[in-house]
Amino acid sequence: MPKKVDHEERRQEISDALWRIASTRGLDGVSLREVAAEAGISLGRLQHYFRSKDEMLLFALRQISQLADRRIRERIEKAAADLPEEPSPRFVLRESLAGMLPLDERSRIGQLVAAAYFGRAVHDERLSSEAQEGIPRLREFFAGLLRRAAERDELPAGIVAEDEAMILIGLVDGLTAYTLLNVHSPEEALRLLDRHLERLFGTAG
Amino acid sequence: MPKKVDHEERRQEISDALWRIASTRGLDGVSLREVAAEAGISLGRLQHYFRSKDEMLLFALRQISQLADRRIRERIEKAAADLPEEPSPRFVLRESLAGMLPLDERSRIGQLVAAAYFGRAVHDERLSSEAQEGIPRLREFFAGLLRRAAERDELPAGIVAEDEAMILIGLVDGLTAYTLLNVHSPEEALRLLDRHLERLFGTAG
Repeated sequence: MPKKVDHEERRQEISDALWRIASTRGLDGVSLREVAAEAGISLGRLQHYFRSKDEMLLFALRQISQLADRRIRERIEKAAADLPEEPSPRFVLRESLAGMLPLDERSRIGQLVAAAYFGRAVHDERLSSEAQEGIPRLREFFAGLLRRAAERDELPAGIVAEDEAMILIGLVDGLTAYTLLNVHSPEEALRLLDRHLERLFGTAG
Repeated sequence: MPKKVDHEERRQEISDALWRIASTRGLDGVSLREVAAEAGISLGRLQHYFRSKDEMLLFALRQISQLADRRIRERIEKAAADLPEEPSPRFVLRESLAGMLPLDERSRIGQLVAAAYFGRAVHDERLSSEAQEGIPRLREFFAGLLRRAAERDELPAGIVAEDEAMILIGLVDGLTAYTLLNVHSPEEALRLLDRHLERLFGTAG
């Protein structure tokens, strides 16, 4: 099915153009025409692939999410290969959360696209439904890791896994925002995340 | 000086128009002309008060911050009037943080303007300098409250006040974002904040 592959490739190229704009001047007020120009195609051709800016943003956002997933999974698998046993729930949790922070250029650009998404999604039920579906799944994944840690007696008693999972997601989101605003460095965001995890797991100094 | 008062009043009216747009369809791609129309004045007249969208956004953001400050201070003073003694550092901290969450329509609109600011400020050094100055001040205020709580033996040993202050700001910011996206309710955001504070103060179930 060469036709389908071409279609996906072209959508990818347009999405890449959107990323480039997102990483430089931002997506506020950017028109489909400007994205088409950045991708080196006509507006009509772009509209063959994406009917609206929101549709394009959603596509870019899902890609970012998939790429981040893959990056985090590879990171965990790589680390696991060097370990004598299975990586602990805490290790997987920490690597997943760290992988959400804008610690390198690739994840920084991803978070800039996510910032553009956020600004529009707060006013758009169709866009925000993406977060309404994705975040509870992520919360459940983190809660599962916390429950496994508790079963291994690696978490203090009385921790409510679902609550702490959402607190972690909220914290990483806020630390990401202040990293993008240059209020603090990416390293400081990671240090604060680790501080929080140490307190959560009861291993703080 | 009636001239100056008029000037401030007009800026306020324009800022109100910006808020109305922010609370309904958002500020992404909104032009000065559209804000002028909402305020019922000509574009030329608006430009007499604000030369750019960023200047207007900064004015609106500072107002939001002042209004939130006043609202929180009044709330604490009102509660303090009913208390037999001075409100505790923990009480002031909790009320301040709760006051930052979009728990009512007024603070929700404020956070929507802040969301629009965020989307632009990540690409603009002049805009982001507002956060770079304001957030460390807020962090120091919260850290001071945590230090006072520690002096009163109301905080477990080994807590690093500056770190926990920034973790609290990041958490409230993230919980705010997911409230605006309708991932969870404002009440759930407040419940999670309280859960975090309970663990921080060592009073969790």
